[in-house]
Amino acid sequence: MHRLLRRGAPALLAALALAPHLAAQQPLDARYRDAANRLIGAALADSFAYNRLATMVDRFGNRLSGSASLEATIDWAMEQMRADGLQNVHGEAVMVPHWVRGEESAELVLPRAVPLHMIGLGGSVATPPGGITADVIVVGSEQELAARGAEARGKIILFDVPFTTYGETVRWRTAGALAAAKAGAVAALIRSVSSFSMQNPHTGSMRYPDSTVARIPGAAVSVEDAMMLHRMQARGERIRVHLTMGARTLPDAPSRNVVAEIVGSERPDEVVVISGHLDSWDVGTGAMDDGGGSVAAWEAVRLMHRLGLRPRRTVRVVLWTNEENGTRGGQGYRDQHRGQLDRHMLAIESDNGVFRPNGFRFQGSDAALATLRQIARLLEPIGATKMDPGEGEADVGPMIALGVPGLGLDVDGTRYFWYHHSSADTLDKLDPQEMARCVAAMAVMAYVVADMPESLPHQVPAAR
Amino acid sequence: MHRLLRRGAPALLAALALAPHLAAQQPLDARYRDAANRLIGAALADSFAYNRLATMVDRFGNRLSGSASLEATIDWAMEQMRADGLQNVHGEAVMVPHWVRGEESAELVLPRAVPLHMIGLGGSVATPPGGITADVIVVGSEQELAARGAEARGKIILFDVPFTTYGETVRWRTAGALAAAKAGAVAALIRSVSSFSMQNPHTGSMRYPDSTVARIPGAAVSVEDAMMLHRMQARGERIRVHLTMGARTLPDAPSRNVVAEIVGSERPDEVVVISGHLDSWDVGTGAMDDGGGSVAAWEAVRLMHRLGLRPRRTVRVVLWTNEENGTRGGQGYRDQHRGQLDRHMLAIESDNGVFRPNGFRFQGSDAALATLRQIARLLEPIGATKMDPGEGEADVGPMIALGVPGLGLDVDGTRYFWYHHSSADTLDKLDPQEMARCVAAMAVMAYVVADMPESLPHQVPAAR
Repeated sequence: MHRLLRRGAPALLAALALAPHLAAQQPLDARYRDAANRLIGAALADSFAYNRLATMVDRFGNRLSGSASLEATIDWAMEQMRADGLQNVHGEAVMVPHWVRGEESAELVLPRAVPLHMIGLGGSVATPPGGITADVIVVGSEQELAARGAEARGKIILFDVPFTTYGETVRWRTAGALAAAKAGAVAALIRSVSSFSMQNPHTGSMRYPDSTVARIPGAAVSVEDAMMLHRMQARGERIRVHLTMGARTLPDAPSRNVVAEIVGSERPDEVVVISGHLDSWDVGTGAMDDGGGSVAAWEAVRLMHRLGLRPRRTVRVVLWTNEENGTRGGQGYRDQHRGQLDRHMLAIESDNGVFRPNGFRFQGSDAALATLRQIARLLEPIGATKMDPGEGEADVGPMIALGVPGLGLDVDGTRYFWYHHSSADTLDKLDPQEMARCVAAMAVMAYVVADMPESLPHQVPAAR
Repeated sequence: MHRLLRRGAPALLAALALAPHLAAQQPLDARYRDAANRLIGAALADSFAYNRLATMVDRFGNRLSGSASLEATIDWAMEQMRADGLQNVHGEAVMVPHWVRGEESAELVLPRAVPLHMIGLGGSVATPPGGITADVIVVGSEQELAARGAEARGKIILFDVPFTTYGETVRWRTAGALAAAKAGAVAALIRSVSSFSMQNPHTGSMRYPDSTVARIPGAAVSVEDAMMLHRMQARGERIRVHLTMGARTLPDAPSRNVVAEIVGSERPDEVVVISGHLDSWDVGTGAMDDGGGSVAAWEAVRLMHRLGLRPRRTVRVVLWTNEENGTRGGQGYRDQHRGQLDRHMLAIESDNGVFRPNGFRFQGSDAALATLRQIARLLEPIGATKMDPGEGEADVGPMIALGVPGLGLDVDGTRYFWYHHSSADTLDKLDPQEMARCVAAMAVMAYVVADMPESLPHQVPAAR
């Protein structure tokens, strides 16, 4: 009998903790239960993360790329991270698109004069000075637009398409102006990409991918207004709208990804990234998208530090810039760290609001998934054990495309698209205890992957 | 054996229908099942009422007392009622308050410059030209205001009181400006009286009941903004707001209650009133409050007419003016019909949104309640059998106070205070099938009470 076994089970377990080559035989959840419970307990013990997010959004408001408020938030975050005792706090420079909204409005002229609830789409060109006044054609599909044919020329096209999923509905926002311009329209409106509306129109990116097609202004109207215009058209009424937008695209502006670390005790050059994006749209305060994810990722690392949980590998919190209209932060990181990506064990991001977490969506190899499923069992106390293949997050996407395993925090999505990219994205939509669970889930996942003897295998995803 | 009984049950039942003195022995629900099912079936068969409401709100928008849009809606409703074939269609003149909002805005000046989501309260005075700029004190109760004492002088007071019930929370809207003025404040803000917010501030009436106290401007800010200012104060930050309001109270304006009838076949001078209010606040379209209730009451009578269900007594649909800021419609009706109120059998109103109906809230005698409970059994097919004593509706209140039995349609109230008095009160918040059930519930109740041989006893309510 091995001498360890003669000393009985408690001693065996104690010895195992000191013997990684033996410990590796144990499932990860058995080996890391204590550390995980400490992280979970610390996360749930107070509202530090929620209060920090409150301070951030109340002080700086929304944070569009190119804005002074984004750069001030970045400075503040680095200062706070240093005060937290995190290591290697620095900004990593990238150039970001700099679109500014300007004055904008839309008024219904016919059949009844009334202001519409509108918001310009990010990246849109301006209207001519004085605006555009034109008749409106409401369509619900490309087929319907095609069927209206030459009638669209000189008109404003309103795409009134009800929300199904974001992926399915967002294409009207992204590409509606292109389709309308191809049909000869002078401007494009969309029904806000939103699953519930209280007259809060939603912005978001649009694109002009085809340089041979005229660039026409694009804006969203509230769900309510889109439905009203559609009803008016169904009654045979002539609809006329006056649209004014002063949007401008300025030269790219300097910005930064915020980076801070707990340097690994044994393999400091191996890295687990844990992240959210600091930039937001220029309405509301971006508390949900993605102030909450940023502060939760940051808090996960702050708690490890506070608890003295220094893992073997480096845990690196990254607060991305420019997720919303360019993903230049994620692309810049990939380029600046290209030589080290094979030592990036995992890239975690939270960008669906810090609502009640279910677990994670994974991108990577089956072998890595099996390992992460062992770790996910540690999230049983907060009901966040889900670990399934799924869609990834935007900022870690460039890394994942090169083989780094990726995790996106999966949360209760019931109300995400009520608030997303609108004035209603504010702190009060989040709950301190739900946010604390998000912190706990990310902290446990990052810590165990950074500390475990095993490495998560890389696998370059198949091209879509 | 009575000769009728010798002829067997079917013949007996047929004879009973012709013999009110015998029919009265049968419960009302047995006697009126066929008529009720015809009304219910007709109401649920199409979306006529919903489409009529859509036409109304899309064409006229919101309808504040004194506005051209309210008077145009009144003209349109009477024209449509005549086209429906209703009888005695006319307007009954009353003078109504005429408050106009004017230009208004609020901006946070300190600790951070950002526009607030505000809406002036109905009846408020204006700020001086150029607005008021003052520091803000946030309080959550009268006690807290009292505790701040002389500090309130020259300040703007924000009452940040979370919504509990409307009755409990609305007093801040009604009387906040008075309390703030007594403390020496220069303006009063309230957290919107709203159970859920997406940056849609809610208006509503406020009052200056004490002529010895200075009249200071009153406005609501969104729930989100009120919470933000409260957090800023909790952090010890200085809060400063610039408030501009151009509100004016003009001389009272002429308006009308819309009245139309099905004249009773036997007792035309006995009346059942069925009603909603046509006026609304000057934001959104007042589809829920109370366009829906108005059109549902109207539709109930249109369906009786269409089905040839002419009751013994007169059914009178009344679309009230000026519920929102004066109740002059309901008061005027009481005064103009004072001599006939003893022949008003019942006054029904729908003013809680035409959401899924539960039944009715009743005001009156126990004997009348027992009779109405028999009738309510007829609403079993639409699950609207509730008939309990409860709070009454505003416009029928003056009649009820003089002894007329009153019914308020009781509906699913989950979302009423999300939309109420805000830009989000729009057609899409209502559902055609739920609205049809409201029509059915009101139609059955009005028809049976107007037709039954029995009279509902009057009872003057005890003073509160």
